[in-house]
Amino acid sequence: MRMTVRIAVAGASGYAGGELLRLLLGHPDIEIGALTANSSAGDRLLKHQPHLLPLADRQLQDTTVENLKGHDVVFLALPHGHSAALAEQLGDDTVVIDCGADHRLTSADDWKRWYGGEHAGTWPYGLPELPSQRDRLVGARRVAVPGCYPTVSSLALAPAVDLIEDEVVIVAVSGTSGAGKSLKANLLGSEVMGSASAYGVGGAHRHTPEITQNLSAAAGRPIKVSFTPVLAPMSRGILATCSAQLKNGANVREAYEKAYADEPFVHLLPEGFWPTTNAVLGSNAVQLQVTVDEDLGRLVVVAAVDNLAKGTAGAAVQCMNLALGLPETTGLSTVGVAP
Amino acid sequence: MRMTVRIAVAGASGYAGGELLRLLLGHPDIEIGALTANSSAGDRLLKHQPHLLPLADRQLQDTTVENLKGHDVVFLALPHGHSAALAEQLGDDTVVIDCGADHRLTSADDWKRWYGGEHAGTWPYGLPELPSQRDRLVGARRVAVPGCYPTVSSLALAPAVDLIEDEVVIVAVSGTSGAGKSLKANLLGSEVMGSASAYGVGGAHRHTPEITQNLSAAAGRPIKVSFTPVLAPMSRGILATCSAQLKNGANVREAYEKAYADEPFVHLLPEGFWPTTNAVLGSNAVQLQVTVDEDLGRLVVVAAVDNLAKGTAGAAVQCMNLALGLPETTGLSTVGVAP
Amino acid sequence: MRMTVRIAVAGASGYAGGELLRLLLGHPDIEIGALTANSSAGDRLLKHQPHLLPLADRQLQDTTVENLKGHDVVFLALPHGHSAALAEQLGDDTVVIDCGADHRLTSADDWKRWYGGEHAGTWPYGLPELPSQRDRLVGARRVAVPGCYPTVSSLALAPAVDLIEDEVVIVAVSGTSGAGKSLKANLLGSEVMGSASAYGVGGAHRHTPEITQNLSAAAGRPIKVSFTPVLAPMSRGILATCSAQLKNGANVREAYEKAYADEPFVHLLPEGFWPTTNAVLGSNAVQLQVTVDEDLGRLVVVAAVDNLAKGTAGAAVQCMNLALGLPETTGLSTVGVAP
Amino acid sequence: MRMTVRIAVAGASGYAGGELLRLLLGHPDIEIGALTANSSAGDRLLKHQPHLLPLADRQLQDTTVENLKGHDVVFLALPHGHSAALAEQLGDDTVVIDCGADHRLTSADDWKRWYGGEHAGTWPYGLPELPSQRDRLVGARRVAVPGCYPTVSSLALAPAVDLIEDEVVIVAVSGTSGAGKSLKANLLGSEVMGSASAYGVGGAHRHTPEITQNLSAAAGRPIKVSFTPVLAPMSRGILATCSAQLKNGANVREAYEKAYADEPFVHLLPEGFWPTTNAVLGSNAVQLQVTVDEDLGRLVVVAAVDNLAKGTAGAAVQCMNLALGLPETTGLSTVGVAP
Repeated sequence: MRMTVRIAVAGASGYAGGELLRLLLGHPDIEIGALTANSSAGDRLLKHQPHLLPLADRQLQDTTVENLKGHDVVFLALPHGHSAALAEQLGDDTVVIDCGADHRLTSADDWKRWYGGEHAGTWPYGLPELPSQRDRLVGARRVAVPGCYPTVSSLALAPAVDLIEDEVVIVAVSGTSGAGKSLKANLLGSEVMGSASAYGVGGAHRHTPEITQNLSAAAGRPIKVSFTPVLAPMSRGILATCSAQLKNGANVREAYEKAYADEPFVHLLPEGFWPTTNAVLGSNAVQLQVTVDEDLGRLVVVAAVDNLAKGTAGAAVQCMNLALGLPETTGLSTVGVAP
Repeated sequence: MRMTVRIAVAGASGYAGGELLRLLLGHPDIEIGALTANSSAGDRLLKHQPHLLPLADRQLQDTTVENLKGHDVVFLALPHGHSAALAEQLGDDTVVIDCGADHRLTSADDWKRWYGGEHAGTWPYGLPELPSQRDRLVGARRVAVPGCYPTVSSLALAPAVDLIEDEVVIVAVSGTSGAGKSLKANLLGSEVMGSASAYGVGGAHRHTPEITQNLSAAAGRPIKVSFTPVLAPMSRGILATCSAQLKNGANVREAYEKAYADEPFVHLLPEGFWPTTNAVLGSNAVQLQVTVDEDLGRLVVVAAVDNLAKGTAGAAVQCMNLALGLPETTGLSTVGVAP
Repeated sequence: MRMTVRIAVAGASGYAGGELLRLLLGHPDIEIGALTANSSAGDRLLKHQPHLLPLADRQLQDTTVENLKGHDVVFLALPHGHSAALAEQLGDDTVVIDCGADHRLTSADDWKRWYGGEHAGTWPYGLPELPSQRDRLVGARRVAVPGCYPTVSSLALAPAVDLIEDEVVIVAVSGTSGAGKSLKANLLGSEVMGSASAYGVGGAHRHTPEITQNLSAAAGRPIKVSFTPVLAPMSRGILATCSAQLKNGANVREAYEKAYADEPFVHLLPEGFWPTTNAVLGSNAVQLQVTVDEDLGRLVVVAAVDNLAKGTAGAAVQCMNLALGLPETTGLSTVGVAP
Repeated sequence: MRMTVRIAVAGASGYAGGELLRLLLGHPDIEIGALTANSSAGDRLLKHQPHLLPLADRQLQDTTVENLKGHDVVFLALPHGHSAALAEQLGDDTVVIDCGADHRLTSADDWKRWYGGEHAGTWPYGLPELPSQRDRLVGARRVAVPGCYPTVSSLALAPAVDLIEDEVVIVAVSGTSGAGKSLKANLLGSEVMGSASAYGVGGAHRHTPEITQNLSAAAGRPIKVSFTPVLAPMSRGILATCSAQLKNGANVREAYEKAYADEPFVHLLPEGFWPTTNAVLGSNAVQLQVTVDEDLGRLVVVAAVDNLAKGTAGAAVQCMNLALGLPETTGLSTVGVAP
């Protein structure tokens, strides 16, 4: 006999919310409860998530504590700044999985600088593949799901932190769904198709301190991160190209093989194969490959992830599994949808 | 205790083969046996299907009877003309599901005209949603999976055949994966992106007689089909716009509601909603909407399908389920991967 | 010594306005004067048209008569309903080329039904390739530039009106720029990429009466038009598939050859070649091909156009040339930008 | 009275050849002579370049000295290794503009390592915007057109070489046309759309030594280049993200303003604006923006170019203008085709 976990999703009209529901519809232990939204409350879900036919007739409710309480797990896919108050009122009976940024950063100063306002505190960080993170997630009542760029960047470089100098350079090409459904002119299809563009250049993207935090924690020393995101004409996927100067004598491949040998979702490709984002579309896998530029003595790692899946909603489900004591991979897959 | 069905896929390096494996990896009753190919035999599967990580290390074998026999079910995803001889040698112990065209047409003359050579005979036609087809598929040992265009076009128009005049016009916009992995200049990304183009214009596409056969059978009278496929810059999906002159007094919506009320995969959208191909990406659903151009007295139906899923591999799995007496929807879903 | 024509563009921040400026920058007789906008007034043009470097520092002004008067030619790329009042105040000294719908329809009833409100009257219709239109454009002081779908659909079928029955079926696949820069969720890149969708189905698109008007005028009898637009994942281009039942004995190809033999921009391809939208990207050409479905006795015409160029801004420049007595092709080209 | 320059294009069926012809059709001083190809010889050009309507009926000839000689200028758009012998036989009466790699590298050792075989010698390098290059191109009889990645990367970093440490990191996102029309599975539309992928990782791409050569020459000291190209789902365009550690006290913006103040094609955007590839589509412009990551003391430059235009064919025309003593910008434009 299986336990049934009753869940709610706040922000069910957005891309992260939709992907959460897509994955949860395939999770054997889940019963989908309240679906809430802000301006879309009152709409039926079909209007916003036409691909989720089994939930087409569900009505979106307002995002209130009243609508969210009474569930075993509440997923928050909200703009930053909204989770702390909700979580407090939901109480510890409810597991809260926050896809937003509010509780990712450990430093209140970093929070203040990058997001502004008071820091709401730090929750267990939902990237179990990082050193010592998994244990903190087992049985957790609160989880901060990582940002999509920090997920792929941190997993791409964490195994190498002892082998490299202190500065890393990351250029990550991303699909547009990472920007959500916000109605901005530069996100219109006519602008996006056929075009690549960088944004948040010069260390201005808010995921920079999160990557820095992860890599510095893994290294046990400050790592400096040069991070540039690039928007490409695709809906999903991030391809991160990460490089750093190697110290002498590093056996890079061995370090990655060791780090990810037992990880179900992080997959070091055999030599000669390189990641592509469509190979991980819709899946919870991270595919990566490593090499050394021998002329420069520089490590180069390329990693692919689906920003909405392992980059957000898949990680959220993975963390829910850990929090509830379910097998970590339940309802998740390493099989992508390609071509 | 569940039965385990051991399957083989011939043509496992192609798009249809890859989609079959993607779906079968999620099917609870399946054990994946031999994977065969032609020129790619000897390669590991990762090279051709980098999204199928659980099978990455499988080696492709030659497509021979020896390699395929001994499985409960053999899926054929081969160029036309190859299935009859293989099926005969596999014997009736093996269920053969043919994704190719060889056994779809009932008329030997049609076969000769459109494909050339001898007709290999007609197998039960794998579109259970058409009138009287489902019964023929239950327990079948041979199934001819429909073409992708005939699937969506036939389902879009079959409920209306009694309400319309004898000529229908279908313009179907398709993603490029329908053309397979053939190395043709017009299928290069540089040619495809940003461009729409028609092909097989003027009734020249081989799916025309198959659509005609389906609609004429459903109508019990000859239906004339004007069919034009259009290639659009997307990997997957078909959006078919189908129209026909209405006879007087037709209650169109009622006919569609009735036809598909109990169908798990064919979904008439509520009024005001229109299908999009990304809503069915990776799913076995057909989404459709109907309306009447009152100025012209003309029915217009728009239907969306994933050409590789319900259009090919999903239908194949659905037919396997019927053939084996499994619940028809096992391993299949109406949930798409969007955005 | 060349005459210099001083022009203004109202609506210079949008896609039609941008394309007008792109073409006019390459026109040898033009001096670009006022550029106006509504909510973007005050911005420098670079913000909205980053591809128009020579005009990057120009400041957008308010769309007022004061800013537009005093130019030889004023192009209006405004929402419908705005041109009549402006044109009246500009007076006959100024040639007004309206890219909007206000003065295209000849029937006030049609206007009222499809757009609502009072009809502002009919201007010479800017499709010189239609029978008897060119003469009305030479020396005109007012021109109504056709809609993009009517342009391609009318040119695709006009030469055949005497050869066909009274009903035509048009399915036109369009890029997203036709919808302009309006901030709608369904136009976001994440929604558009990988997806095809129909809209205005069942004769509901406002271009339907315009196509009907053109074809009926060409035929000298009422032509019924079934028109369905389909959005495809590309920024520019329309590919129209047009069909109609043929009367007996029609020599289709000859009719098209004759109709377009001397047209500089409408190009019937040699047999065996089919139009693609990328072949006309950025150009003023219409590429088309005709065939007959012999099984059905049905004419099928496929035509490609750039919706922003010959579909809007190119036609506007072509009409300006005619109005001013310049060679019709000045500043225009049949060379596309591909791949 | 204008001089007319008679040109030939070898490799007229490919993407570089097509773009050359597109630009040359708009060049006022050019008469287009022989068009040659290899396997496509005998075809009419329409088959390979359907966007070049004015040349549609031209027949492709074999690429032989006989067909190429007698022109004022011969453009070579051929695989590497083919230009030296042809150029020798054409003699100094003919200006030869080579879009291939044969004569770009100054070091015979580099040539041998990266391309193999004997080095055919070094020709004037066709990037006039680099220090001291323009003078070598005026009146030249032989020009080596730079690679597309070296063009954008070198222009992005050359003004900063005195301000930075010795190692630069470049990640360049490119459209697929850079790979030409080669029939490779990974270039199929179905593979490319929706996907990003890196290639030539770890310093393995042949453009690496060319970038190194350019930046080292500009710096007067060895510059180490970490270069990673990334394929994105678009036909054209390169967006290069380039970074390097700054020395103390550098005034970066001033250096770029000074370097490109008088350049007609290299455009430093005003602060707050960032380059996009669609803004330069079809144009000869390079758009760039610079910033400093203050936390790291690192320069970050983002630059956009059309790989086929300024990245290949536009540069070739620009060099032809210089070689012939025509105004450098003749037939070229900074106006892109967007959206």
